[in-house]
Amino acid sequence: MRCSVPVLLSGLMLISNMAHADELRERANAIFKPIPAKVTEVRGKAVSPDQAQLGHKLWFDPRLSRSHVISCNTCHNLSLGGGDNVTTSIGHGWQKGPRNSPTVLNAVFNAAQFWDGRAEDLQAQAKGPVQAGVEMNNTPERVVATLKSIPEYANEFKQAFPNDKDPVSFDNMAYALEAFEVSLITPDAPFDRYLKGDDTALDAKQKEGLALFMDTGCTACHSGVNVGGQGYFPFGVIKKPGAEILPAGDKGRFTVTNTATDEYVFRAAPLRNVELTPPYFHSGEVWDLEQAVAIMGDSQLGRTLKEDEVGAIAAFLRSLTGEQPHVAYPVLPASTSNTPRPE
Amino acid sequence: MRCSVPVLLSGLMLISNMAHADELRERANAIFKPIPAKVTEVRGKAVSPDQAQLGHKLWFDPRLSRSHVISCNTCHNLSLGGGDNVTTSIGHGWQKGPRNSPTVLNAVFNAAQFWDGRAEDLQAQAKGPVQAGVEMNNTPERVVATLKSIPEYANEFKQAFPNDKDPVSFDNMAYALEAFEVSLITPDAPFDRYLKGDDTALDAKQKEGLALFMDTGCTACHSGVNVGGQGYFPFGVIKKPGAEILPAGDKGRFTVTNTATDEYVFRAAPLRNVELTPPYFHSGEVWDLEQAVAIMGDSQLGRTLKEDEVGAIAAFLRSLTGEQPHVAYPVLPASTSNTPRPE
Repeated sequence: MRCSVPVLLSGLMLISNMAHADELRERANAIFKPIPAKVTEVRGKAVSPDQAQLGHKLWFDPRLSRSHVISCNTCHNLSLGGGDNVTTSIGHGWQKGPRNSPTVLNAVFNAAQFWDGRAEDLQAQAKGPVQAGVEMNNTPERVVATLKSIPEYANEFKQAFPNDKDPVSFDNMAYALEAFEVSLITPDAPFDRYLKGDDTALDAKQKEGLALFMDTGCTACHSGVNVGGQGYFPFGVIKKPGAEILPAGDKGRFTVTNTATDEYVFRAAPLRNVELTPPYFHSGEVWDLEQAVAIMGDSQLGRTLKEDEVGAIAAFLRSLTGEQPHVAYPVLPASTSNTPRPE
Repeated sequence: MRCSVPVLLSGLMLISNMAHADELRERANAIFKPIPAKVTEVRGKAVSPDQAQLGHKLWFDPRLSRSHVISCNTCHNLSLGGGDNVTTSIGHGWQKGPRNSPTVLNAVFNAAQFWDGRAEDLQAQAKGPVQAGVEMNNTPERVVATLKSIPEYANEFKQAFPNDKDPVSFDNMAYALEAFEVSLITPDAPFDRYLKGDDTALDAKQKEGLALFMDTGCTACHSGVNVGGQGYFPFGVIKKPGAEILPAGDKGRFTVTNTATDEYVFRAAPLRNVELTPPYFHSGEVWDLEQAVAIMGDSQLGRTLKEDEVGAIAAFLRSLTGEQPHVAYPVLPASTSNTPRPE
């Protein structure tokens, strides 16, 4: 068989392109991991359907809040990417919270919860907002009294925690919420399909963005299955952003560890579904994904990214949007005359 | 065939009881009507699936409010009997609304909407809370700008209203909400099964309550498919209740008609699922169903109902709880950079 020079050349280019494509995927697979199809365990223990179903109800129940108006879903809205798309959440008495609400979607894959990682798991996390004065403003005692006053809940706790002497507890409420939350994952994003071998899942610009995301050093903080959420890093490692983006009063992880080097240190934001969760950063002051990428280049990498670089990286980030969880809106058991009244 | 006297007597008593039972049902069927299995029309016009699906999304979308935090479902919560189970609703800026939130369930069967009937249908009703300063605090212009800024919504409006030149409109938003709301009905309550001939659907106490409900005159206001919601009546027709229950400042239908005889006149509350929707009355100041029944006897009938009469009527009212609608929690289309920001 004889080949003409042009055919030979284009064949060689194809092989070189394929090798290049495989190399990019190989590099990506060394840094990231696809979202699994399902999570059925809470920290190594199988989730029981009773626990998950109970958690599903509690998730949407506004009676966990003092006002009976705010549920977990108010600030972690499953119809809007698992956050609330406002600068900082609005809570009890219309108080504004100090930080932007992180998405619950894929939160199970984060190394720890909250912007400062102060909760080691989703059970510990769930206890926070229920009690926070600016959020749900409730107390464990009042929550337990509320749940115990509703016979259907008492039964469901008994079924979900059959070995507990006193199954309706604040701990078990939080555990049931965690059992539901582990199901709130978003598999099958274009990026996941790409990692698994589907070369057509990302377009040329998104691949360019992926290469830039790895080459410029974004992956130093944003890696793993959640493209972030795994470690703690100073915001403004090279150059501090302005006070509107990094308010002086919020010292981040410093308030958890009380260690000077943890001032303005935050958990690297997990970037799954990031296009669905503006505004960005813990302060929630940046609405535009491109602007957020440019700020990161500037403050974290000391590099002024060109407009087309920013565009390519943002295009790659938009490939992280997966299949959103479809859940039922539950019918909740009714309050009784013993249920503490809203305040 | 020969019968002993005791057998004959008990046979006669059975026949007499059956006749009595049939008579009670007959009387009830002349006053009330069962909830139908389905409603597929909006005021005589077939609902299209596209309209209903769009309405389903809009129902849960907090971006119809100025804050992006309050949706229709916040105050008409489908997981809690279609109301919010607080005295008066909490709205924009944590303002307290002037009246208790009426349930959306079976609202399609009411003669008019709101406690004072100021909206003639659900489309007209839907425009109210979106604009009310103490509720969602938005403007039609801002709502339309929000919906138009989201391409998926623009498409869905086009599909739902194919003959409209400018399908994304405040009117069509309200119409789509109505198209969804007509599906929010609660068929198959024990009382419905009783009306249709199932004698075991109500127990003896509930039948006694039903008889009392008709005999004492409750049905003068509370009749029809919704056991109320059909006409306007003065609260305190015989005796005015205390100012905490009937605040002097809220003159009810008077503000709609400006007619002196409409002072303190309200739409008779529809009593379907009433056990799920405390607190009661337009003021939302009474939490206990038995207490609400006693107050009604006193103020509307001029009759101090005995404790067992109150108990029987309340037992009957609890037979009005039907099958609650099971709906999906929708995934909403994402905002864009053109979407007006929350305020």
